[in-house]
Amino acid sequence: MADDLCRVDFEPVGKRVDVPAGTTLLEAARAAGVELASVCGGHGHCGRCRLAVLAGAVSGQTEADRSFLSASELAAGQRLACQARLESHVRVHVPPASLVTSQRLQVAGEAARLAGDVAEDVDATVRGWQVEAPAPSLADHRADFDRVCAALAEQHGLTGLTAGPSVLRQLSPLARRTGWRLTAYLRGTEVAGFAAPGRAPVGLAVDLGTTKIAGYLADLETGTELAAAGIMNPQIAYGEDVIARLAHAVREPGGAERLAAAARTAIDSLAGALAADAGIARDQIVAACIVGNTAMHHLLLGLPVRQLATSPFVPATARPLEVPAADLGLELAPGASVLLPPCVSGFVGADHVAMVLAAGLDRAGLDRAVPDQAGLDRAVLDRAGLDQPGHVAIGLDIGTNTEIALSRRGTLTSASCASGPAFEGAHIRHGMRAADGAIEGVRLARAQRGELLVAELRVVGGGKPTGICGSGIVDAIAELHRTGLLNARGRLVRDAPGVRRGRDGLEVLLAPAAETGNGADIVVTQGDVDEIQLAKGAIAAGVRALVAATGTDPAEVGEVIVAGAFGTYLNLDSALDIGLLPRFPNAAYRQVGNAAGAGARAVLLSAAERARAERIAERISYVELTTFPGFQRLFAHAMRFSELPASEPQLGEPQASELQASEPQNDTTGG
Amino acid sequence: MADDLCRVDFEPVGKRVDVPAGTTLLEAARAAGVELASVCGGHGHCGRCRLAVLAGAVSGQTEADRSFLSASELAAGQRLACQARLESHVRVHVPPASLVTSQRLQVAGEAARLAGDVAEDVDATVRGWQVEAPAPSLADHRADFDRVCAALAEQHGLTGLTAGPSVLRQLSPLARRTGWRLTAYLRGTEVAGFAAPGRAPVGLAVDLGTTKIAGYLADLETGTELAAAGIMNPQIAYGEDVIARLAHAVREPGGAERLAAAARTAIDSLAGALAADAGIARDQIVAACIVGNTAMHHLLLGLPVRQLATSPFVPATARPLEVPAADLGLELAPGASVLLPPCVSGFVGADHVAMVLAAGLDRAGLDRAVPDQAGLDRAVLDRAGLDQPGHVAIGLDIGTNTEIALSRRGTLTSASCASGPAFEGAHIRHGMRAADGAIEGVRLARAQRGELLVAELRVVGGGKPTGICGSGIVDAIAELHRTGLLNARGRLVRDAPGVRRGRDGLEVLLAPAAETGNGADIVVTQGDVDEIQLAKGAIAAGVRALVAATGTDPAEVGEVIVAGAFGTYLNLDSALDIGLLPRFPNAAYRQVGNAAGAGARAVLLSAAERARAERIAERISYVELTTFPGFQRLFAHAMRFSELPASEPQLGEPQASELQASEPQNDTTGG
Repeated sequence: MADDLCRVDFEPVGKRVDVPAGTTLLEAARAAGVELASVCGGHGHCGRCRLAVLAGAVSGQTEADRSFLSASELAAGQRLACQARLESHVRVHVPPASLVTSQRLQVAGEAARLAGDVAEDVDATVRGWQVEAPAPSLADHRADFDRVCAALAEQHGLTGLTAGPSVLRQLSPLARRTGWRLTAYLRGTEVAGFAAPGRAPVGLAVDLGTTKIAGYLADLETGTELAAAGIMNPQIAYGEDVIARLAHAVREPGGAERLAAAARTAIDSLAGALAADAGIARDQIVAACIVGNTAMHHLLLGLPVRQLATSPFVPATARPLEVPAADLGLELAPGASVLLPPCVSGFVGADHVAMVLAAGLDRAGLDRAVPDQAGLDRAVLDRAGLDQPGHVAIGLDIGTNTEIALSRRGTLTSASCASGPAFEGAHIRHGMRAADGAIEGVRLARAQRGELLVAELRVVGGGKPTGICGSGIVDAIAELHRTGLLNARGRLVRDAPGVRRGRDGLEVLLAPAAETGNGADIVVTQGDVDEIQLAKGAIAAGVRALVAATGTDPAEVGEVIVAGAFGTYLNLDSALDIGLLPRFPNAAYRQVGNAAGAGARAVLLSAAERARAERIAERISYVELTTFPGFQRLFAHAMRFSELPASEPQLGEPQASELQASEPQNDTTGG
Repeated sequence: MADDLCRVDFEPVGKRVDVPAGTTLLEAARAAGVELASVCGGHGHCGRCRLAVLAGAVSGQTEADRSFLSASELAAGQRLACQARLESHVRVHVPPASLVTSQRLQVAGEAARLAGDVAEDVDATVRGWQVEAPAPSLADHRADFDRVCAALAEQHGLTGLTAGPSVLRQLSPLARRTGWRLTAYLRGTEVAGFAAPGRAPVGLAVDLGTTKIAGYLADLETGTELAAAGIMNPQIAYGEDVIARLAHAVREPGGAERLAAAARTAIDSLAGALAADAGIARDQIVAACIVGNTAMHHLLLGLPVRQLATSPFVPATARPLEVPAADLGLELAPGASVLLPPCVSGFVGADHVAMVLAAGLDRAGLDRAVPDQAGLDRAVLDRAGLDQPGHVAIGLDIGTNTEIALSRRGTLTSASCASGPAFEGAHIRHGMRAADGAIEGVRLARAQRGELLVAELRVVGGGKPTGICGSGIVDAIAELHRTGLLNARGRLVRDAPGVRRGRDGLEVLLAPAAETGNGADIVVTQGDVDEIQLAKGAIAAGVRALVAATGTDPAEVGEVIVAGAFGTYLNLDSALDIGLLPRFPNAAYRQVGNAAGAGARAVLLSAAERARAERIAERISYVELTTFPGFQRLFAHAMRFSELPASEPQLGEPQASELQASEPQNDTTGG
């Protein structure tokens, strides 16, 4: 039935699609809007898109199926969706762990409580003006726009106004409906749109993450938040990390266009949902600010990414952009524009700039008293030769790519390290995103006779567990180490009580099949530990390398700010215990939520913050860690599962010749 | 065969199309790209789309067929294309008179020789800069655009540059192809595009006429004209005049979009043809200027036209616009913008402003010596109380809508009158456009025995005549009047030698069937005379009303400038003889070609001329002639076929209360 359509029913999500025979179940899921997890983009390399075929026929098992699924799983009809091609109508079951739609989305940013909180004065670039104009007549046959401009001049002293065709398209019919009483939205002297009388101008801030998209609506006159929501980034269907997406854009015909369309459609839908939630009309949204990493930024704008995907990984542009919303397919006010704050480098994007802004890293130790400063050892300051009280602050946003900024004596240095998707649950045997059913917290204990007791499992949503998410695996590994089941080199201790031999080697049982939501044991394997070891080693080494590259004495570090969704739910004690974050002797550690989103909101609401974001990008020096001398040594050391000092005694001070921090490259002399 | 496709072969144009049975031949012609004339847009009201069915079956004759075609024509297979629906494969013959593609297009404008010639200094808003940047490396990982900006800063001192996504899309691959040697086109601080090294910036000027589109390419650095060409406006398929087009846009679903697409596609094709002709790349075209009447302007931009089509006929905007070329579907440099100079009112558009500029009407009698001034009677100036030597200049662009401007003592007043499409050959028995085979000049004489002799027929292309175009009919009517066959009231003189009784009343034979290209007599009928009488009456009355409305003494008029294609080929003596133009005692009459196109080129090449165009639009007062008291009397008087004095003795001076000239409405106070 090669020419026939096959119907696919997805359970329990209740979606259905008809696709040609020969289509893979992964493609069918995309067509049906079922967001299956897929790290590798459908090449059978990640094993994340597993589902169970309940009825109907699909193509035979492949090597990929057999490498990721056990014989019993295969016997039970489980398959990788990317490997199974339709041969008839089928009914499939999608386990929660394979779905990305239900993930907990963290949208709140604690901007107001951040050390470097943003300007309180709302000073948005778009304002609304109420105006009433006379209707045209044979005696007064001025053009529609000219008469409204004359009224704005007369009633508000506004002159020299311009409007593009899309705004003019809106005006003529609207004015006749409202009897020539209007709200005019002005961005400088340009009309961004018209609306019925009394409609406040609204702005949209978006943190376009590789995995999640967080959106906020704010009243541009008062700064009041009107709505906030998060959705998954649908680009995830084409690869779960930046590298897979760039590869899709570069290699697949039409790939870049598909990725751009996916992001644009998602943001447009999010805008619609937020507007409905806030009870406003879409055409009240007169301005937007979108931050994302450099790849997300380029893919959204349709900029070339070939040079971003290959060494030396340069962006097409790192400068701030302001583009018509319509050019990005966003149905906002007809003349609305979208501000895209500057990026820094191929791996340090506008989201990092926004994080630095919201966290106040650019101001640390400079023009204001830092609350945490009291904790800083005066002797350290003296020893470092600082001529003023001040402190070093470090901010990091942990994700599949982790960006780190270090602020010291007025300089900003940033680095990026590929920490991989392990904290998102990828490459973890029972890993899943932080969706309902995910174990997010673990406490272990030993019973009197020495055997392991799982003292506490905290599960997202409160039901039975079906897998384990990033913060859960960090917690579990810290507990395994604390209870002696995991040694400092990262090996599970053979024959220790609670360590058993599993399919692929040693493992520890966290939840037996009888107590889980999917009737299967949930375990932490040696392989899982290895994945986390690599990820946490990369982050810790990145932080320490940045400290070394900037000539910072670890004792100077007064503040470590952990931003982002994973960072928010992370148990900081566990993170320090396993050396995911180095322990700085004088540092306060704070989790600040979605700082990138908070930064985007600040830029949206204030021209001063917008200018500040540009200055931040200009000031940041980017350090390429992979070429930083001694990085491999730091990395090897950071793989240890133990509390990690901020520097290794044997590493010593870096040689001046080893410093690879480049000068700021976004300086103003070139533009 | 209702569900089948019918093949239509169009001869002699050699085009073929397959369309569903039931399609009209007019629709099939559109689908095949055969541009059949159609005034009424396919409703059987104009009779222009006639063709002959040579083979195959079409639906039966309609009332419309019978009202426009004689029994012998019908018997020979002639049909109106809009009435005949396909019932089988057919082969049709399209007579030249029904085709609009071969029309003579007048693109030359005598800007340089105009009294008010334009600025000679080229001062275009876009310039090209040669730049060479270092390639990226691990040690220099600046973004592509940032490095080019730094190079432009270093090599030319250019700073603060910006570029939109479309330009950035172009840069990354181009720079890698050219080894980082580039031409950068800058409009102010905005990059309009990049090109290979050594490519001069080029501009496109377009006169978007209701019937014709004239285009010019010019080197923006030297002002040199690189190419010029004209094509038909394909919107003509949806109605030949502005009123029919507006009706199509307002009434037909998707009509406005179709009209916009037709104009945009035509201009884009024209740009491609001009670029090929000039041997330049399309992405060297970094700026464009398009002028047209207000309806063409609105339809091109997709602006609302409902309010333009109904009283009081107001534009959506009359202000100048600058829009991205890509928004109009023009494939030029990626950041190219299109300048649309201001309009004045619903019936006085940017083409009129461009004509006033190119003809120098805004400067007449002001800041320069007028060559023709010597002919002005000094006594008249004194009597009029003028305190300085100066003169009144009148400019008019004759078309289906005729716009007239009068410049007097520093004021500009414009009016518009609906002169109809008779001068384009519509509603004339053997009327046709000025294509090959059109009689464009006529001289009559009487033989010794008193019978009429056709002394001379001038035919476009030099072959046998197939019809008569606008200048031909004006010539013919002037000759009929001169030779006594037509009286001053516009009636053919019954029983005069040469006047015969035809199918629809009296007529005069210009070319017997044996001497014509289509084997049929070519005649001028009483009906033809009636059409021309209405058209020329409207124009002459418009000029005289404008003279009266501005309180001008006809003796003050020193210059009458006739612009436009018809105006270029018109025999001025004939036009004055039949009173198409009033005869002013002290005026020089000049034909200046496509002054609107010349004005568009001037604005394209010079920021000063662009500012001047805006001042002209602000200064022009629009007079609504239909409400001007006494206009009907003027119109009735102007219908006479005789030389027309500039004013009627009995009309006298207009009362001040009759003056309907409105104040300039595009003043700067509102914007």
